[in-house]
Amino acid sequence: MKKKIKKINAAILVIGNEILSGRTQDKNVVFISNWLNIKCGISVKEVRIIPDVEKIIVENILLLSKKFNYVFTTGGIGPTHDDITAQSISKAFKVKYEYHKEAYRILEKYYGQKKFNEGRKKMAKMPRGAKLIYNPSSAAPGFIIKNVLSLPGVPSILNSMIENCKRYLVKGLKVHSITINLYTVESNISKELGLLQERYKKFIEIGSYPFFRLGKIGVAIVMRSNSILKLKKLKKELIKLIKLKKIKILKI
Amino acid sequence: MKKKIKKINAAILVIGNEILSGRTQDKNVVFISNWLNIKCGISVKEVRIIPDVEKIIVENILLLSKKFNYVFTTGGIGPTHDDITAQSISKAFKVKYEYHKEAYRILEKYYGQKKFNEGRKKMAKMPRGAKLIYNPSSAAPGFIIKNVLSLPGVPSILNSMIENCKRYLVKGLKVHSITINLYTVESNISKELGLLQERYKKFIEIGSYPFFRLGKIGVAIVMRSNSILKLKKLKKELIKLIKLKKIKILKI
Repeated sequence: MKKKIKKINAAILVIGNEILSGRTQDKNVVFISNWLNIKCGISVKEVRIIPDVEKIIVENILLLSKKFNYVFTTGGIGPTHDDITAQSISKAFKVKYEYHKEAYRILEKYYGQKKFNEGRKKMAKMPRGAKLIYNPSSAAPGFIIKNVLSLPGVPSILNSMIENCKRYLVKGLKVHSITINLYTVESNISKELGLLQERYKKFIEIGSYPFFRLGKIGVAIVMRSNSILKLKKLKKELIKLIKLKKIKILKI
Repeated sequence: MKKKIKKINAAILVIGNEILSGRTQDKNVVFISNWLNIKCGISVKEVRIIPDVEKIIVENILLLSKKFNYVFTTGGIGPTHDDITAQSISKAFKVKYEYHKEAYRILEKYYGQKKFNEGRKKMAKMPRGAKLIYNPSSAAPGFIIKNVLSLPGVPSILNSMIENCKRYLVKGLKVHSITINLYTVESNISKELGLLQERYKKFIEIGSYPFFRLGKIGVAIVMRSNSILKLKKLKKELIKLIKLKKIKILKI
């Protein structure tokens, strides 16, 4: 099954009113993006944050799962009434929302028969045909159906589960990156960077990000590419240019 | 012009490869959402994070500006080649991308004629008809055109500009919220919360969010509504119910 595909992409769908309202700072996008990049060579191309509303979840699942190789959802797979991710995905893919036998057994064992109440049982309900993403920290599994992988919203739990997604993913070409930090302002080098980007546009994506550190203003130049050779070539050119302009490079 | 509109919503469009790749943790969504909520009674209903690609920015601007009362963009209005928000919005709204006279004057004064180079001049280019959002920290203004407000990506600069957005916004009904923190697990109260939510569904949105604090597991119950009276009524009911279940309430 695992074909060699060059570029593989993904979207992240963050489901949760608490993120939209500003109550909670999302930390999962950074984590998933980095993990996909480094461990799987998969690039996240779009993120959406949406409320706990079935119709909106259904629409986004259908759209994103067509548009990208993988969709990661975070949030909404817990025991409470506002956790409606699994039932919404079932609706989107027109499959039954029902107990997953193995998930049921895992949760029953974890809580013990007596304490295995309605809310906890709900966490064993998934779209028919889903496969489990095991959860080493709090038992309740995530799941994958088609190209959609559903993870919980609590960062520590999500982080502990991410490695268990790997078996379901086809790896892509790794994206390498080189960063050069300069003690200057963006507008001092914007023209030269623009020309370099134009010349390397087929192979390398150049980003420029201002930063403030220890009271000094700087710019991080980030170069990203599938080709480490091309990256090294560009780095040399850039350093030559920076020296010509007498800009100080910051060593980290 | 300022009509009394009951519910006003907004979307945030985060533009930037560095957020998508996981290099940078977004901090603007939480800030803008909270500010809109508290200061303007405006609820953020969708967030999208997209790359620095003109076609994608254009599509999203057109879609979101139709779907929501306001769209806030962050990022991509700096001096470098990867800053393409202003030109993309111009394209979306089919207006000229040109120097804004006042922005040009502001920047020229800030940098001084000699140091007002190409990159810096670029920051004065905007969609024709845009109005300025003044920037007290680094001069380069944001802008508003139609219902789209464009702000920079650097959080400290964005934060310093946000109050200058107010004059362009029609205020909505404030959303009040009450939070009760409990020393319990979600699945212990999920059934009761579900029943309460069902009864109050017209007026109140109840969210339930697990947390870990000082080694203890808890749940934050967040109730949000335009009606403070309804909120207080629900709070009373909830506390009664919690006491019946002998769950400890955490004082903060």
